Amino acid sequence: MTDKTVLPGVLIASGNWAPEPWAAPFGREPERPLAIWPDVPDRAAIHYVLAWRPPAEAFADLPNLKAVFSLGAGVDHVVGNTALPDVPIVRVVDLDLTTRMTEWVTLQVLLHHRQHLAYARQQAARQWRELRQPVAHDVRVGIMGLGELGRDAAEVLARLGFQVAGWSRSAKDIAGIECFHGEDGLTAFLGRTDILVALVPLTPDTRGILNASVFDRLARDGALGGPVLINAGRGGLQVDADILAALDDGRLIGASLDVFEPEPLAADSPFWGHPRVVVTPHVAASSEASVLAVGIHRQILDFEAGKPLGNLVDVTRGY
Amino acid sequence: MTDKTVLPGVLIASGNWAPEPWAAPFGREPERPLAIWPDVPDRAAIHYVLAWRPPAEAFADLPNLKAVFSLGAGVDHVVGNTALPDVPIVRVVDLDLTTRMTEWVTLQVLLHHRQHLAYARQQAARQWRELRQPVAHDVRVGIMGLGELGRDAAEVLARLGFQVAGWSRSAKDIAGIECFHGEDGLTAFLGRTDILVALVPLTPDTRGILNASVFDRLARDGALGGPVLINAGRGGLQVDADILAALDDGRLIGASLDVFEPEPLAADSPFWGHPRVVVTPHVAASSEASVLAVGIHRQILDFEAGKPLGNLVDVTRGY
Repeated sequence: MTDKTVLPGVLIASGNWAPEPWAAPFGREPERPLAIWPDVPDRAAIHYVLAWRPPAEAFADLPNLKAVFSLGAGVDHVVGNTALPDVPIVRVVDLDLTTRMTEWVTLQVLLHHRQHLAYARQQAARQWRELRQPVAHDVRVGIMGLGELGRDAAEVLARLGFQVAGWSRSAKDIAGIECFHGEDGLTAFLGRTDILVALVPLTPDTRGILNASVFDRLARDGALGGPVLINAGRGGLQVDADILAALDDGRLIGASLDVFEPEPLAADSPFWGHPRVVVTPHVAASSEASVLAVGIHRQILDFEAGKPLGNLVDVTRGY
Repeated sequence: MTDKTVLPGVLIASGNWAPEPWAAPFGREPERPLAIWPDVPDRAAIHYVLAWRPPAEAFADLPNLKAVFSLGAGVDHVVGNTALPDVPIVRVVDLDLTTRMTEWVTLQVLLHHRQHLAYARQQAARQWRELRQPVAHDVRVGIMGLGELGRDAAEVLARLGFQVAGWSRSAKDIAGIECFHGEDGLTAFLGRTDILVALVPLTPDTRGILNASVFDRLARDGALGGPVLINAGRGGLQVDADILAALDDGRLIGASLDVFEPEPLAADSPFWGHPRVVVTPHVAASSEASVLAVGIHRQILDFEAGKPLGNLVDVTRGY
């Protein structure tokens, strides 16, 4: 094999995820060096790293690195890496991922709105009893974070009839969605929100943002009888003790949590057994590796054909 | 009071529902006679009956009856009345009702699609385990019944990414929804359906339509691992024993049932305790009396101003 026929190589550092489906599209190119962390026979051959929770050492000593591809929509696991090289970081954006997240968010909003947990308890007790039920038009959903995921969920929830508003760091303009932004807009946003959906990236600014001060500012006069918290972002956004205290004293009447810090959620966490909390094991929008890998492979071929990389992460901003 | 100032009278026969909210808009018109069944002092004054599961006697001896207003979207409770007079029967059609039904149907579809019952069991066992999850694009929903309610649910489910088809008695054409019709179209419709949603009216033709023959024809090769039944129509559509047998032998892997025959569901029904069945107490689209009554009152004022009645029931067809 001569240099002419060797393609830029790929390193898969997929953490606790199986590397095989991520490697598959590259494995079908015999001219492309392919390494699976920690086995990297020729570091100079590596031009791209596909990364999920990569160890710092995975980035060391890669003289020809051109780009890092994050295997999840959130990039905190890469951006926080102390050895992150100064190359473009590409976020995975995929219709499959957005669809899955909107499924999960819509399910959780409807589940609290339609009092599913109370009805499930009644079913277990063989109790036929109708509960007072507001209609979606009387319930205000607030989406914290208006990236790809937040915008899609907002659109579906508005179609269902909910009053949907969004909040983001910088000003956005989305048809049919009332948009708030910045620290100044946060209090007004929270004050009109019955169901708060967190879809913000985890950054130093947003760490612990789901805390008592935020819960205190949520709407208290809503049709549901109190506010609900839904977190599909990252566990680092939430202050567990504040959520539990708010659930206890009625500042929150329910919660759906898909993410925790650390994961897996500890067996003795009070969230597991809380009668008004839905816990799912970080499955809201699980990357389907076989689908996403094909998209990343396609991006790399486009890049090698001279096209610019899309969906770049702003490392300073953190997302 | 002279005849000139007397308005056409109203009789509220609202069965097991409280009559007050239905009576409220009429009670604000002092010139309009208002009777609450069974107390009807002047039968000749009654021009309109507002009815929910009315007894046959409620229609007897009303010489000036002009129209009957059904207080629910389904009209089987009125059409089946042996004493039904030959006057227009008006079905309630209301955005509020459609929104509520679409909320419930969407919740139940997502709940089965996203394996909520399995995740709830895992939560109770403090078990952190990801389940294999298809994306909506790989799951086929079939809506049986394409009236106002079926069409709206189909639209929302298609927006969520599901492959949605519909089946109706007569041919329909709806953008983005594959439409089947008639007995000839039923087998093809069922054969491509993973989640069957029943939103057909209860008529002699549809009584017992959710039976073994239908379950046998549902898709067996779907991404969910088997078919799911969701019934938000009427209890009379379903053959309970066939549903239970299909759940037992895997021809159905789950069900959500909001309606039963009789209601309330008997305390010893196996549905209550079934691990793969969601039971709700006929609340999918509960009429919010205060909202719907205003709409009926508005229709009556329009009718008295010379406008034709809308949303008429075809009594022969049964819906």
